[in-house]
Amino acid sequence: MPTLQKDGEVFVLDLGDTENRFHPDWLAEVHTALDEVEAAAGPKALVTTATGKFFSNGLDLDWLGTHADELSEYISAVQALLARYLAFPAPTVAAVQGHNFGGGAMLALAHDFRVMRADRGYFCLPEVDLGMPFTAGMTALVRSRLEKQTAHEAMTTGRRYGGVDAAAARIVDAVADEGEVLATALTIARPLTGKPAGAVGTIKAGIYAEVLTALRQPPL
Amino acid sequence: MPTLQKDGEVFVLDLGDTENRFHPDWLAEVHTALDEVEAAAGPKALVTTATGKFFSNGLDLDWLGTHADELSEYISAVQALLARYLAFPAPTVAAVQGHNFGGGAMLALAHDFRVMRADRGYFCLPEVDLGMPFTAGMTALVRSRLEKQTAHEAMTTGRRYGGVDAAAARIVDAVADEGEVLATALTIARPLTGKPAGAVGTIKAGIYAEVLTALRQPPL
Amino acid sequence: MPTLQKDGEVFVLDLGDTENRFHPDWLAEVHTALDEVEAAAGPKALVTTATGKFFSNGLDLDWLGTHADELSEYISAVQALLARYLAFPAPTVAAVQGHNFGGGAMLALAHDFRVMRADRGYFCLPEVDLGMPFTAGMTALVRSRLEKQTAHEAMTTGRRYGGVDAAAARIVDAVADEGEVLATALTIARPLTGKPAGAVGTIKAGIYAEVLTALRQPPL
Repeated sequence: MPTLQKDGEVFVLDLGDTENRFHPDWLAEVHTALDEVEAAAGPKALVTTATGKFFSNGLDLDWLGTHADELSEYISAVQALLARYLAFPAPTVAAVQGHNFGGGAMLALAHDFRVMRADRGYFCLPEVDLGMPFTAGMTALVRSRLEKQTAHEAMTTGRRYGGVDAAAARIVDAVADEGEVLATALTIARPLTGKPAGAVGTIKAGIYAEVLTALRQPPL
Repeated sequence: MPTLQKDGEVFVLDLGDTENRFHPDWLAEVHTALDEVEAAAGPKALVTTATGKFFSNGLDLDWLGTHADELSEYISAVQALLARYLAFPAPTVAAVQGHNFGGGAMLALAHDFRVMRADRGYFCLPEVDLGMPFTAGMTALVRSRLEKQTAHEAMTTGRRYGGVDAAAARIVDAVADEGEVLATALTIARPLTGKPAGAVGTIKAGIYAEVLTALRQPPL
Repeated sequence: MPTLQKDGEVFVLDLGDTENRFHPDWLAEVHTALDEVEAAAGPKALVTTATGKFFSNGLDLDWLGTHADELSEYISAVQALLARYLAFPAPTVAAVQGHNFGGGAMLALAHDFRVMRADRGYFCLPEVDLGMPFTAGMTALVRSRLEKQTAHEAMTTGRRYGGVDAAAARIVDAVADEGEVLATALTIARPLTGKPAGAVGTIKAGIYAEVLTALRQPPL
């Protein structure tokens, strides 16, 4: 389950040590952590990371299999988390230490910056191979954060990008060796803690106004 | 005239051995070929190429000169082909072995990927020098497929990009020596033939929803 | 105060030798210069530069401090200048020889191309640190001219980019040594003077249609 700690002025949210799929209880815990970061006064930034082999594998397909009638509400809830991160009123950095698939990849894209492990782990949008559609909000999010041909390739081919390839395609801003991913993310986050949180949130909400509208619409 | 063949699971459409301008009969033949690809069951991808000095020089200005009263319908028909390629329900690769001007360049941009001959041939949008406007749909297409400053330079200056320059500007995904353009395109297409065609088409239609709307509007 | 000269077929507009902030009188002088360029027949292009330590520092906060009730009209006037440059009916190149902050940076972005001094001077959008919002028009302008992650970083962090960093981030098209900035801009502008001015303006108005609409809306 997600746990929130502090490293100096930087909040560090660990998404967990499993596949960190978006179970409703997990979503609620992440929101509770974000509430705490958002309420904190003074200089701050947020680094999101996880423990073990996975950053996040996205949608909780097991849970969905037994709650098919709640699909629309569930996707809305996922999109609400993506929207919250995208316009979060503080600098955010994803320390992607492991696999980063589907909704988990989109969660990383909703951060201001991304650091990825160089030697293992993939960034991948597998929807095309699964025959799962991207919602309008998810399409808008990916298009707003990746360069054009990168978004096209990632979405239409389901390519698995290792860290070095992801950096070359500008999906991530930096790569780091195992054990250095979180430290590198902290190095990016620390100089930004003094940015006025309200202004940071307002500016992001302005840049991504259409994306946020799409993410907040009923998806189905 | 266009001819369709197969190389393993990959359909190869040869646009012809002339300037391959968009004569109404030529447009009809291309649509017939695309119908065949679209109807084919099983793994597939489409590579579009041509024979000789030209990939395509775009609008058939000779034909337009004698059918000025059909201008609006003609441009609509051209835009319909661009829209069909842009959301085509199968992976597509343009093997650009020769000159690629105006509407021909836009046709290449409507493919998922592009390979261009390294040593000869130009990618060029000459509209600014011809005093020809870009329609709203064509503007939307170019903006959706090229990086921002590349689209700006290509559209406002009519710059002729050789293969190496086009790759540096990310207009094309790869360059190849003479005689290797088609082979390189096949190398890109083959690993993609197993992608579910319906999902590929739906995802592209989602990414380019606004562009498709603009291409399907009456242009004049 | 702004002064307009000619170097062969290229008009050279010098924004002044102060901080070149957007005082209402300064805005009027720039418009008068642009009127002259726009009215000129024959081949032409426009290079905008300045003298001394600053290209432009943007909004005239001193003047605003004594005219707070005119804020909305003032921002509208600034946006009108940005819109005029963005769709200017001639090729435009900014020769950024000095600091380039806020509205001054946006003015540079509204040119077709930018050359920046390599060793001194910064490109910077300091709004986040000043707690100043970007208007919808300004957000649209920056998003339309910078690559996605560059726009995100420039707007949300207020990063100061030196010339070399600005070129790496594709904010500028070229860098030059001190004393060579204007010469390099002229080298870019001269081959473009023959482009049909009307077509250049029409094509830019098409590419940036939504941005121009946003810049022409009441900002507050």
